[in-house]
Amino acid sequence: MSQTYSPSRPLRLSEVERWDIETDVAVIGFGISGACAAIEAKNAGAQVTVFEVAAASGGSAALSGGEFYLGGNGGTPVQKAAGFEDSTEDFFKYLMMAGGPGADEARVRRYAENAVAHFHWLEAQGVPFKGTYLPGKWLEPMTDDTLVWSGSEAAWPFAQQAKPAPRGHAAQMVGMGAGRTIMERLTAKVESLGIETHYSSRALALVADEENRVQGVVVRIDGEPRRIRARKGVLLCAGGFICNDEMLKTYAPAARVGDWPVTGGNDDGSGIRMGMSVGGAAIHMDQFFITRPFFPPESLVKGIFVNERGQRFINEDVYHGRATQYILRQPNQRAWLIVDNAIFDRPMTRPDIEVAAVGETWEELEQELGLPTGELVHTVEAYNRYAEAGSDPVCHKDAKWMQPLVEAPFAALSYCTTDFPGAAFTLGGLSTLPTGQVLTPEGAVIPGLYAAGRCACGLPRWGDGYSSGMSLGDSSFFGRQAGRHAAIGE
Amino acid sequence: MSQTYSPSRPLRLSEVERWDIETDVAVIGFGISGACAAIEAKNAGAQVTVFEVAAASGGSAALSGGEFYLGGNGGTPVQKAAGFEDSTEDFFKYLMMAGGPGADEARVRRYAENAVAHFHWLEAQGVPFKGTYLPGKWLEPMTDDTLVWSGSEAAWPFAQQAKPAPRGHAAQMVGMGAGRTIMERLTAKVESLGIETHYSSRALALVADEENRVQGVVVRIDGEPRRIRARKGVLLCAGGFICNDEMLKTYAPAARVGDWPVTGGNDDGSGIRMGMSVGGAAIHMDQFFITRPFFPPESLVKGIFVNERGQRFINEDVYHGRATQYILRQPNQRAWLIVDNAIFDRPMTRPDIEVAAVGETWEELEQELGLPTGELVHTVEAYNRYAEAGSDPVCHKDAKWMQPLVEAPFAALSYCTTDFPGAAFTLGGLSTLPTGQVLTPEGAVIPGLYAAGRCACGLPRWGDGYSSGMSLGDSSFFGRQAGRHAAIGE
Repeated sequence: MSQTYSPSRPLRLSEVERWDIETDVAVIGFGISGACAAIEAKNAGAQVTVFEVAAASGGSAALSGGEFYLGGNGGTPVQKAAGFEDSTEDFFKYLMMAGGPGADEARVRRYAENAVAHFHWLEAQGVPFKGTYLPGKWLEPMTDDTLVWSGSEAAWPFAQQAKPAPRGHAAQMVGMGAGRTIMERLTAKVESLGIETHYSSRALALVADEENRVQGVVVRIDGEPRRIRARKGVLLCAGGFICNDEMLKTYAPAARVGDWPVTGGNDDGSGIRMGMSVGGAAIHMDQFFITRPFFPPESLVKGIFVNERGQRFINEDVYHGRATQYILRQPNQRAWLIVDNAIFDRPMTRPDIEVAAVGETWEELEQELGLPTGELVHTVEAYNRYAEAGSDPVCHKDAKWMQPLVEAPFAALSYCTTDFPGAAFTLGGLSTLPTGQVLTPEGAVIPGLYAAGRCACGLPRWGDGYSSGMSLGDSSFFGRQAGRHAAIGE
Repeated sequence: MSQTYSPSRPLRLSEVERWDIETDVAVIGFGISGACAAIEAKNAGAQVTVFEVAAASGGSAALSGGEFYLGGNGGTPVQKAAGFEDSTEDFFKYLMMAGGPGADEARVRRYAENAVAHFHWLEAQGVPFKGTYLPGKWLEPMTDDTLVWSGSEAAWPFAQQAKPAPRGHAAQMVGMGAGRTIMERLTAKVESLGIETHYSSRALALVADEENRVQGVVVRIDGEPRRIRARKGVLLCAGGFICNDEMLKTYAPAARVGDWPVTGGNDDGSGIRMGMSVGGAAIHMDQFFITRPFFPPESLVKGIFVNERGQRFINEDVYHGRATQYILRQPNQRAWLIVDNAIFDRPMTRPDIEVAAVGETWEELEQELGLPTGELVHTVEAYNRYAEAGSDPVCHKDAKWMQPLVEAPFAALSYCTTDFPGAAFTLGGLSTLPTGQVLTPEGAVIPGLYAAGRCACGLPRWGDGYSSGMSLGDSSFFGRQAGRHAAIGE
């Protein structure tokens, strides 16, 4: 037992003298993808064993806002009740746009066609949805309502190509953080099914034969490495790599500006590295979600972002995470939200936001911010003209969110990266089929290996296109696909 | 011999019944990194065998402009003769900035300290340098001169942090494409050293033991897979993956807009995949070089790029490849170079460029381009004011390249991606030490395996920071390091 294990090197089958535990499906990680995979595999008749590095279930999902991005098939019951029709094709188109240049059509298609059924499945597992709609611009409901606009659906260029609908479905809970509720219910379901779970158990390395067919996994349980035989498959549901600074430096250096990682603390990339150790491809590893939310209050959506050139650079009615990605690309990552007295407020998540400048005139504000003379003045003058006309030819913001900025004093709220921490997690991960089967760089299936959740590169794979609920939606849905496929091969 | 080989799966040592060829160092690829690696390994006393998939040496280097990015230590003889002092620290700083957020300090340090010695080494191998300086803004010398400004050294923000110097050193040849000359000379050197070379020989898979220690490589020679034992190491010098559309889709989808791949035709990513098959990390796989050169003639540097909002977005005196990266990020990837009659010309590499609009007034040009009313007019008015004042507070273009655009007619040259093919190659590759040793995702050395050239992720690893000569400089210098380390372990 003096052997040193590494996620980057599989234990060869020939080195396994005996198995300590035997099961059909070994699930690594008890976050949302692991929970859903375990439930589905068990229901399909497999023996399932879950290994979780933390002392309790939950993973990063338990710290999340608890929204699922769902729609299509005419709409979920909640969308329909609120009067929104949502065709599969519009839902599909939005998800393809949101997936960016590397969108995975097969995955998006399967999700778009089955998301309504997935909503019912989640309900059946005990995830509570009140079924009510909350209008407005929110990060997630602060009430116990269900349905919110949680992406860039209604904003250019998305709305021009896919008919918008609200698709964020939050679990019922008053206040932020309904992810906790979701994970409590899914954990209860896993327990009620009698699925064997090992906590405080770290997966150390995969076990594979000489052909890299995965046979099991080595897990440290009670301080000892145990060889787990997984007859039908190992499911990597161990999260992303936002906690691993070395991996961030290597794969997603730009993400290191996000100084507020969204994680339960165990997104160390070890699941991804285990997959790579048997030839799995890790894809879109540079992509990450990041946000510095500027709404609510939604009055701030009526402000305009400008960079240090005094230029606008984004339609401010987009998802806050998309706006943040654009801020990161501005010169010196400096940007300010410019407001007048009529809309002035402080963002809910940053009540102590740095007010970088205040002025009685635009000239004064421009000067205080050190912007090139005349640029902010021009930008506001043009914007006010567009607002009057109800059309924004520069950034295509919807008229609903435009009103002339004319009431002094004027102010600039700092969204410079040095002034405002960004919440971030990684989007890159193992390349998989919609079944969860892990692929090599050449697209060959690695027998016996599955990945889901942020261990895999899923629906959300492009920071510019992220919408709240995409990661939970993807993790739960494709966790299920992986669990089912591992159990019964379909 | 009915076995199917894949770059993504190593042949296990236990499956090798006999070796067909034995050598110390097996070099895969006879482009510039392979040539330099072979020379250095041979000179260090090793038996070296080179395997090249094409029927002749050259690789993509032979199709390149033939520039090496060199400086530091007070300057190369050519820099000094032209009156440029270039400290190691300034050279280092520029390379660190050019490497972007994932810059590899150890690699940059070794290169910056040894680039002048490398210049002498290249000369000693027979690479001809005339030793003369050609002022101005060029892609590469059309004359047989040596030294040109080949990056963004003199432009914001680089010049503000690192004292600029011209560092592109081109091999002597009249006209474009001095890479051919370089590869002719290096090939002659390899031959004169009696290094064994196999052409039309495709590397099929690595040979590794159960611990992924690399022992050799399978190469198809005369239609038959041959097992090559490499006692001291296999050197992957097989290029990048710009020819592999599946890999581009997976790893660098944005690069697919580059419809003019810079390659000898064999950059199929197989070298990178072989490295990954034994646990090598592939890093910065999303990054790529791309350019739509807008100069020469340098008069066009005095124009201004605007996007479909009518905004400027880059100081136009930067390297053409950096400007192109910025164009790709503009809304709908549309941008135009705006010129007046005084500077009007057509870019040398695109004499049939689409003139998208011509006008006697800026209002007319703006309208013809369909830009928001008043935006281009404002942008030009402000730019002309800045040009008069000799200072560009918006984009920080150097005053040298600024003159008011006042002589009608005015014109817009289209740099919209749909109108102008982009030359592109990939920058992501295997993670290596400065010695060329390939690393796992956890930073462990894979015994017996080296990578150099675009098979590795080298100095150039950030599209925004590329400068002409970086890839040849990196490939030749770090090819040498790999050859030497494989031969004698230092």
